[in-house]
Order: sequence, then C-alpha cells, then structure tokens
Amino acid sequence: MLSTKQRIAVDMDGVLADVYAQFLRMHEEDTGQKLSREQVKGLLEEEAFPLHDEHVNRPGFFRTAPVMQEAPKVLELLNTHFEVFIVSAAMEYPNSLKEKHDWLNAFFPFITWQQMVLCGSKSIIRADIMIDDHFKNLDNFQGRTLLFTQPHNQTSPTKNHQRVDNWENIAELLL
Amino acid sequence: MLSTKQRIAVDMDGVLADVYAQFLRMHEEDTGQKLSREQVKGLLEEEAFPLHDEHVNRPGFFRTAPVMQEAPKVLELLNTHFEVFIVSAAMEYPNSLKEKHDWLNAFFPFITWQQMVLCGSKSIIRADIMIDDHFKNLDNFQGRTLLFTQPHNQTSPTKNHQRVDNWENIAELLL
Repeated sequence: MLSTKQRIAVDMDGVLADVYAQFLRMHEEDTGQKLSREQVKGLLEEEAFPLHDEHVNRPGFFRTAPVMQEAPKVLELLNTHFEVFIVSAAMEYPNSLKEKHDWLNAFFPFITWQQMVLCGSKSIIRADIMIDDHFKNLDNFQGRTLLFTQPHNQTSPTKNHQRVDNWENIAELLL
Repeated sequence: MLSTKQRIAVDMDGVLADVYAQFLRMHEEDTGQKLSREQVKGLLEEEAFPLHDEHVNRPGFFRTAPVMQEAPKVLELLNTHFEVFIVSAAMEYPNSLKEKHDWLNAFFPFITWQQMVLCGSKSIIRADIMIDDHFKNLDNFQGRTLLFTQPHNQTSPTKNHQRVDNWENIAELLL
C-alpha cells in the first residue's frame, strides 16, 4: 500500500550530523589551530579545512560526529506525520557507508533500514519535501525545499529555498 | 544541467549479480546437498535456502558473487544512451554496503559513485525505467518495468511488467 503521507527526504551531514563540530575538532587536533564557525563562514568545507579529505576518510569521522541539537526529538515527531527518508550522498566515501548506518541506528533508533538511502547524486530522489544544506541538492529538486543553515551557505542568497537555522525552525514550519 | 536522457534504475542482486550461483555454492558447501535452479523454482530465496540469512551476512557473500552473463557489455552500452543508476535494496545488510560498492567498481568500472544508490525501499526512486527481479520493487514504480527472470519469479504471472530472461533480451528491448 502506498502511503498518503507527504514524503520528506532529510540530509545527514550538516542537517542531522554536526560535521562542522567534527572538522573543527580534528583540525585543531592535527594542526593546533583553533578555528571558529565564524572564521569559515562562506567557504566550502574543502576550502575551510585543508585536511578535509584526510578527515572524512578517517575511520570514525562519521560514526563519532555529534548529533544536531533537537534533531532526534523533532525527527521522531516528523516520523509520525510524514513518510521520512534519510538521504545521504555518501557513495564518494565508501568507508562511511556502514558508519552512517550505525550512527543513524544509535541516534535515531526509530528510523528503520527501509527509511535509509545512501547515494551519490540526489537527482534520483522522489519526495515532496527536501531538507538539505547544499544548493546542488536542492536546486534540482522538484518539491518544497528547506535550506539548513551551515557556515558554507550562510552568506549565500537563499534563492527559491526556505532557510531554516535549526531543528526548532523545522518543527515550527512542518509540525 | 539536468540530463534529457531517459533514466534507468538497475537492480543489483539477481540482475547484475548472480546471487543464486552464490546461494547454490554456499548451500552445497555447508550442507553437502547439491541443489539446482530448477529445484528452487517458484520459491522465495529465504524458502529455498535455509541458511539464507547466515549466507547473506557472511563477509564476502556480495563481494565474490559472480557477475551476470553479458551484463558488463550491455550496461556499458546502456550507459551511453541512458542516465543509468544502480539501485540496490542493501540497507538490511549493513555489512554488504562497502562490498557492493567494491563489487560494482570491479565489474562495472564505468559506473561512477554518483550513479550508485543503496537503499531500503525503492519507493523513493525517480526514474523512467526500472529493471528488477522483485515484484515488490516493480509494482509500485511509476515508469516502464522490466522483470528480470530469476527462479523465485519464474512461475509467477508477469502482471504489468515486461519479462526479460537475460541481458541480451535487455539489449534487444532498449538499444
């Protein structure tokens, strides 16, 4: 039976997982330099963190990323009102695939394996609403789009997307 | 830029990968009983192979599965005429995720990580054509559907789907 609920595709990195916290921590550990989110505002992650590629390929990078504030509580509510899918563009980093599955199980135990999607391009996703921090994913999506504020998109015009700064914002808009 | 090519979603297990060959081999190794495809015709894989769950969770099950005859040659041609995505319902077996990525890289080096999707439910997939051996994936798909013959579906009526017995059939239909 097909669901009549609206379907939401929720991104992981920079939406559910606070990957900036992880980059900032590893950058400081490896270089001794303490950066702030303010300092990397407007830069792509690859530009902000010179050790980006090394860090995302390091075992544990995704598995030990902190969860975004209020995300578990709000997503659990969304999960009763919408058909929720977690959609992560993870295939570029094959070592991350199991870590991402395990991380979701740990922080979002109410999300079943049927609701998880690990892909390369999100152009294949069919849903009504997409929550993401990257324009490349939102710009080609045909439904309603929420742009989750992260340092790399903070200084960009929001285009046709609706900006949300945190999970409380998402709850206000969708619940 | 969005592609104007038609998009095909191609299943892995039972379409690109000959998982029956793997089940039959492991079943014989573990039980001493040599089964044939004919003997398991019309049965679900779980019914046909009592050690199914143990086998699919065994490291190497997916990585060492044989490739389906003619699949690399035909898929490489399709890849120039269509927008090809490989879509595998793999999330139930998290240990399979990296194996599936590595297997694709080995047998289909022309398929990029952008073209790979590992999911739980295929209801989230947006494409024009789907090639799959399972009715549960094809029945809810909105585009054209090709049912790839495998022992478990061999005795079932084809419903609204078009049956293909091998990759030569697919080439004849789509190229």
